[in-house]
Amino acid sequence: MMKFSLTDTDGDARRGQLIFPRGTIDTPAFMPVGTLGSVRAVAPDEVRQTGAQIILGNTFHLMLRPGTEVVSAHGTLHDFMGWPGPILTDSGGFQVWSLAQKRQISEQGVYFRSPVDGSSVFLGPEESMTVQKSLGSDVVMCFDECTSYPATRAQANASMQMSLRWAQRCAAVPLRAGQALFGIAQGGMYEDLRMESLTQLEKIGFAGYALGGLSVGEPKDDMLRILQAVGPTMPKDKPRYLMGVGKPEDLLAGVAAGIDMFDCVLPTRNARNGWLYTRRGIVRLKNAVNRSDTRPIEVDCPCAACARFSRAYLRHLYVTGELLGSRLCTLHNLVYFQRLMSDIRNAIARNQFATFARDFLTDFAGEGRDMA
Amino acid sequence: MMKFSLTDTDGDARRGQLIFPRGTIDTPAFMPVGTLGSVRAVAPDEVRQTGAQIILGNTFHLMLRPGTEVVSAHGTLHDFMGWPGPILTDSGGFQVWSLAQKRQISEQGVYFRSPVDGSSVFLGPEESMTVQKSLGSDVVMCFDECTSYPATRAQANASMQMSLRWAQRCAAVPLRAGQALFGIAQGGMYEDLRMESLTQLEKIGFAGYALGGLSVGEPKDDMLRILQAVGPTMPKDKPRYLMGVGKPEDLLAGVAAGIDMFDCVLPTRNARNGWLYTRRGIVRLKNAVNRSDTRPIEVDCPCAACARFSRAYLRHLYVTGELLGSRLCTLHNLVYFQRLMSDIRNAIARNQFATFARDFLTDFAGEGRDMA
Repeated sequence: MMKFSLTDTDGDARRGQLIFPRGTIDTPAFMPVGTLGSVRAVAPDEVRQTGAQIILGNTFHLMLRPGTEVVSAHGTLHDFMGWPGPILTDSGGFQVWSLAQKRQISEQGVYFRSPVDGSSVFLGPEESMTVQKSLGSDVVMCFDECTSYPATRAQANASMQMSLRWAQRCAAVPLRAGQALFGIAQGGMYEDLRMESLTQLEKIGFAGYALGGLSVGEPKDDMLRILQAVGPTMPKDKPRYLMGVGKPEDLLAGVAAGIDMFDCVLPTRNARNGWLYTRRGIVRLKNAVNRSDTRPIEVDCPCAACARFSRAYLRHLYVTGELLGSRLCTLHNLVYFQRLMSDIRNAIARNQFATFARDFLTDFAGEGRDMA
Repeated sequence: MMKFSLTDTDGDARRGQLIFPRGTIDTPAFMPVGTLGSVRAVAPDEVRQTGAQIILGNTFHLMLRPGTEVVSAHGTLHDFMGWPGPILTDSGGFQVWSLAQKRQISEQGVYFRSPVDGSSVFLGPEESMTVQKSLGSDVVMCFDECTSYPATRAQANASMQMSLRWAQRCAAVPLRAGQALFGIAQGGMYEDLRMESLTQLEKIGFAGYALGGLSVGEPKDDMLRILQAVGPTMPKDKPRYLMGVGKPEDLLAGVAAGIDMFDCVLPTRNARNGWLYTRRGIVRLKNAVNRSDTRPIEVDCPCAACARFSRAYLRHLYVTGELLGSRLCTLHNLVYFQRLMSDIRNAIARNQFATFARDFLTDFAGEGRDMA
């Protein structure tokens, strides 16, 4: 059974621990994304060494490939992919919205064409729960409808109300012992709809609460407005999860609004594109300035890339498409994100989160502005 | 300075050691190929853990990307790529033959169009030596002309004679202290030309001798005929290197003919294509039989893939194009090749190489015939 406890607060920012039989997660936490049962380009033991304590898997992707029966032959997703720690699985709701072709949404769920082979697939609340139960996810997410941006108030309300009815159906599906089910608040860019969504989700009662449908194309100001209005009002004694976010500055904004958990493909995807995070901004390997640069990406970084390899070597691997480059850059970015979360947690414990965030953003804008 | 000593012989097969300041190599040895300063998909420490004691780099590729000046900014190729052990570099002769466009070959050397950017590049004996000196290679290969197959006797002779004159020029270029220069015997499929090439190379005097221009499209019987005729006649007190070979059965044939060193892209390239070597032949991940197979590729294999992951998981990574798959499969195949070489060395020490080779081939044909 999941346990959640807060150890420090600093304004709305919170520091705590999420405890699962498979491991303990220090919050605020960043969760690397392992869409298809692999955090892209790196091995599970390396992911652990970056400091990550929990990773994400995707119901949508894993039900299509390899299929739950293949995973089940190994036990749970943990056994299949060799990650013994906790796993959170997305419900597939977001992927149906962003990836599936020819969606037909009804009260029952969603029919769509598989992006893998074009076959017709159905995914609804019960199906998503069944897959996540089968995967043995430590955190199971409700199947929801991601409200598109832009949406009228009526559209956002209708979508949010359907997600609430789906959440009720999700909550009615028996899971494995110990699996924690999180509800997802929707409501588009309408603060009162978001509040209504949260209130109704609380009535159903979940082990944690997430904000979905942000970072879906809306202006950054809208995202921050919703985050700042809704984040601090989420249930205090339950973990709060901002889905699919984000950039370092967004993580800081999320923590400031009381968020405990984040996930995003940015560190891994950017790494494969030769974008490397440093304290002073983003280094783009492609840039000629790195061609003969014998320095590591970041001098005091403990990652495998910075310990042994130069910017010039990483640039060479990137330019020539050598697979080792994706791996080293991914390790660097994952270490960067985990160190940032660790610094954030320490700052909260010292009651200096606001100062930390301000100093971080000042430093980060330096090289970033030049290099990005 | 390189030292070479033989510890055992078994028929024409030899067991020994090649000793460099940077490390000792047990022979017969298989050298993984790190064309562009990276053994594709794996990190240097992992390459070492597979049992490899020496790796290959490519003059042709490295002079084009990243260029010797970038490598030199780090020291030698070892420093650039983070591999502290010995490195052998190919001279570029073979790549000019197999990769370069619009070759114009003259006595002086070869003009060609760079396959990277189409620019005109010149590579001759002196240029190749200059690059390999700059890279700091522990074994430097003479710049030669790879004789095409098929070639008339006159063509093969003319080509071989030019390679001899180039070898003379290579030997005249001062290298770094301790760099060992190897000569390359050519002569196409004509045994007497091969013998003549070797005799003349010996007159120049090299630290080791290689057979080039095999595995270039000729029938397997021709390759074996040349190998078996020439291998045992190569200088006994110097390392003998069969370039670009090969399959497990070819390694056995090479060792039987007295060869000490091999290199080939097969284990790494096949790994990326989902072909995995086992004692009972080749497992092709693509095959549906592996879809739900929870067994490792090979039960008693100590590689990172077999230690933790199933055939089904590796197949899933391969089918979905996940980068971790290339790495795990590469590690498996490299471990397979290094274990084979270790088994070969042990068999020679026990004076049972012929028996070992026969039993190996019997086992290998089993699954291989079904799966390939």
